[in-house]
Amino acid sequence: MSKARRIVHKYGGTSVGSPERLHAVAQRVKATSESDAELVVVVSAMSGETNRLLDLAASVSPEPARRELDVLLATGEQASTALLTMALADVGVDAVSLQGHQVRIATDSSFGRARIKSIDVSRVEKALAEGHVAVIAGFQGVDEEHNITTLGRGGSDTSAVALAAALSAEACEIYTDVPGVFTADPRICPDAVKLDRISFDEMIELAGQGTKILQIRSVECAKRYGVNVCVRSSFDDGEGTWVVPEEESMEEVLVSGVAFDRDQAKITLQGVPDRPGLAASVLGPLAGSGIVIDMIVQNVAEDGRTDLTFTVPDAEKARAEEMVRKVADEVGARGVVAAGGLAKVSVVGLGMRNHAGVAARAFELLASESVNIQMISTSEIKISVVVELGDLERAVNVLHRGFIGSESEVGSGTG
Amino acid sequence: MSKARRIVHKYGGTSVGSPERLHAVAQRVKATSESDAELVVVVSAMSGETNRLLDLAASVSPEPARRELDVLLATGEQASTALLTMALADVGVDAVSLQGHQVRIATDSSFGRARIKSIDVSRVEKALAEGHVAVIAGFQGVDEEHNITTLGRGGSDTSAVALAAALSAEACEIYTDVPGVFTADPRICPDAVKLDRISFDEMIELAGQGTKILQIRSVECAKRYGVNVCVRSSFDDGEGTWVVPEEESMEEVLVSGVAFDRDQAKITLQGVPDRPGLAASVLGPLAGSGIVIDMIVQNVAEDGRTDLTFTVPDAEKARAEEMVRKVADEVGARGVVAAGGLAKVSVVGLGMRNHAGVAARAFELLASESVNIQMISTSEIKISVVVELGDLERAVNVLHRGFIGSESEVGSGTG
Repeated sequence: MSKARRIVHKYGGTSVGSPERLHAVAQRVKATSESDAELVVVVSAMSGETNRLLDLAASVSPEPARRELDVLLATGEQASTALLTMALADVGVDAVSLQGHQVRIATDSSFGRARIKSIDVSRVEKALAEGHVAVIAGFQGVDEEHNITTLGRGGSDTSAVALAAALSAEACEIYTDVPGVFTADPRICPDAVKLDRISFDEMIELAGQGTKILQIRSVECAKRYGVNVCVRSSFDDGEGTWVVPEEESMEEVLVSGVAFDRDQAKITLQGVPDRPGLAASVLGPLAGSGIVIDMIVQNVAEDGRTDLTFTVPDAEKARAEEMVRKVADEVGARGVVAAGGLAKVSVVGLGMRNHAGVAARAFELLASESVNIQMISTSEIKISVVVELGDLERAVNVLHRGFIGSESEVGSGTG
Repeated sequence: MSKARRIVHKYGGTSVGSPERLHAVAQRVKATSESDAELVVVVSAMSGETNRLLDLAASVSPEPARRELDVLLATGEQASTALLTMALADVGVDAVSLQGHQVRIATDSSFGRARIKSIDVSRVEKALAEGHVAVIAGFQGVDEEHNITTLGRGGSDTSAVALAAALSAEACEIYTDVPGVFTADPRICPDAVKLDRISFDEMIELAGQGTKILQIRSVECAKRYGVNVCVRSSFDDGEGTWVVPEEESMEEVLVSGVAFDRDQAKITLQGVPDRPGLAASVLGPLAGSGIVIDMIVQNVAEDGRTDLTFTVPDAEKARAEEMVRKVADEVGARGVVAAGGLAKVSVVGLGMRNHAGVAARAFELLASESVNIQMISTSEIKISVVVELGDLERAVNVLHRGFIGSESEVGSGTG
C-alpha cells in the first residue's frame, strides 16, 4: 500500500475559487495520486471568502473579538476542504478532509497570527496508509486549550510547508494563479522573466519586499526544515519556480529579482536628542497598536540630535502620525513630518554578498532616470530605496535592465 | 461565582439572520446573563446559510460525499457562534464560542442524520465556572474518530435539549420566529390560538404531522430526560408555549391542535396476494433509497388479495412510483395507482385516549364541509386523514371549529 514518495500540494484561493477550478484541481490531484506518490493537499479559502467573512464580522462588531474572528475565518478553509474532497470523490479519488483540530496542528494562542508549534501527523499518516488523499485546511490550527487559531494572511503556505516538513515530504508544490517567481512583476516590467530556481534567502527577501507569492514565514519554515518548495500555476502545466537551498552557482547571479511595495508613507521625527531607547519609545506604541513598521533609518547624530525616519503603509499614515506627535514632545523632537504616496523598490540577490558596488550601481541607474531617492536601507543580499509612487515603474524597469537585462539577454538561472 | 440556576437558550436561523437580529439576541442574552442564571446559548446557522452551502455543494458535485457535506454544513453554525460571541463582547458579556468538537458532542457516524450518544460537558462547565456565557454550535457533533457529523434539519433543537439534559438545566428556551405552538397554523386557520402548555406526547405528534416548530427528536429527547422546553419568539417578549410532562388536567382537553402537511402523494399497489413480508418487500427498496414513507394503510384481505397504500412527499412521487412498478410483478400485484396533490390533516390530543367517538366526530365534521377522505390512520392520541390539497383549508378550519372552537370560546389550557 505504501508508496515510494510523498508530496504536498497547496492550492490558493483562486485555484479553488469556483466549481470549475475545483474540478481542474481534482483532475491534477487525481493524476498525482495515481503516480507513485502519497499525496497531501492543503487548501485556502475560496477567493473572496475571507473578505466576505471579514465584512460579515465588521457588520456585527466594530472591533470583532480576536478569538471569535479566528473561529469565523476558519470556516473558509473548512468549506474548501469539503468541496474539494467532494470533487475528488466524483473523479474516483479516495480522499478525506481534515481540519486543524483533527490533524492537531498545534499553535500558540496569538489569534489572527498564530505560529505553528507542532503537528501530530498520526491522523494524516493513517489516512495515507489507508490509501486516501488527505485534504487539509490551511491557515488554521488549535492552541493547547483546543481554541481555533489562524496563522494570518497567506498562512496556508506555512501550513503546507510545515506539513511537508512534519511528513518528510519530498516536495511542497504551491499552486497559485501565476506561473512562478519572476525577476520583477511582469505587469509593470515587460522584461521580467520567470526564475527556474531561487534560494530560500532570496525568496525571503522578495517576500518581505512586496512579492505576495509566498508568505514569508512559509519560506523561513522551508529553509529551517530543508523543504523543497515549488511555486507553480494551477492554470497550466508549467514547471514553476523551485525555492531551494543555496548552491554555489547561485552567487554568480548578482541580482535575482526586483521587488516593490506600493502605498508606503514615511514619517520623520526631526531633531531628536539622541539617547538610548529613543527608537523604542517612539515606535513601541505604534507596534503595540498593530501598525506595521517597515524600514527604519536613523542618521548619525549631529550636535547630539538626530532624525528618525520610518515607513508605514499609506493607510496607517494618519494614525501613525497622530501617535508620533503625541510622543514628540516627550522625546524632545523639534518637529514631525509625514509624507504619503511613496513606494519601496528593492533589488535582491545572493551575489551581492561578494560584489562591492551594487548599491552604487543601483543609485547610478536610478539617477539616470531622474528618480529621487528618499530613503535607503540595505541588508546583506538586498538594497531597498523609497521613491515617489510616480517614479516606481521607471525605477523598477531601469534596475531590471541594469542588473538582470532585457528578456533576450537573460543568462543562466532564469528562463 | 456559581449561580443558582442554569438555562439553555436556543436561537434559530431567523433569530441570528442579520447583524440587527444578532444584536437583539445579544441584548436578550445580556439580560439573562445578568440574572441569577448561568447561561448556555445554542445557535443555528444564519437563515439561508444552510441552503447557500447546499447549493455550493450541488454546484461542485451531483451527489456530494456525505461525510464532506457535514464538514461543509457545520461551517454555518460555526460562523453563527463566532458572530454572536462578537456581538456579546460588544455589549460587555463575557462569552466564548464552542464547536461540536470542542464541547465533544459525541454522535454516531450517520453523516447527515447523526444521533447524539453523549456530551462531555467539562469544557462547558469550565466556561460557566469562569463566568462566561457558552455559545455552542447546534446541529453538529463528532463521531468516535473525530469526524464532523450533523444531526439533520432542525438538529439544533436537539443539540439544545441534549445540552440542557447533560447540564441539568432548569429549562431549555427555544427562540424562533413564531410566538409559540398554536392550535393550528394561523396562516390558514384564523381561529388558531397559542397554547400556554402542551404535553411532550402531543408535541411529538404535532412535530410529526408537519408542525415545523421543533425537530421531533428534540421533543423525544426532552421527554426522555424530563427537560422543560419553552418555545417562544425572539422578536418579542411573549411567554411562549411550555412543552412539559403530562399532567392530569391536560386530558380534559380533547384536541390540542390541528396539524397538516402539504405536498403529499399516495401510491397504491392493487390486488396483491397477501402474504408475510409483503410490505417489507415493497417498501424496503424505497426506504433504502432515502424516500420518506409516511402513512401506510393495508386493508383486510379479500379472496387472499389486498390493497397496500402509502404516502410519500409529492416531490418523490415519480421516483417512488417507478420503484414500486418494478416490484409489482414480483409480488403479483394487479396494478399500481399513484396520485399527487394531496395533504394530510391531523388532530392531536391526549384527551382522545379516554374519549370514544373523536374519530367519528372528525369524519362528520369533514363530511359537513364535503371534504372527501382518501386515507385514514390513527394512533392513541392522533387521527390523520389524507385529503385533496384543495380541501385542506376547509378541513383544518372545520376540525378546529369543531374540536377547539373559535377564539372567543377557547377554554383552559390555551390562551
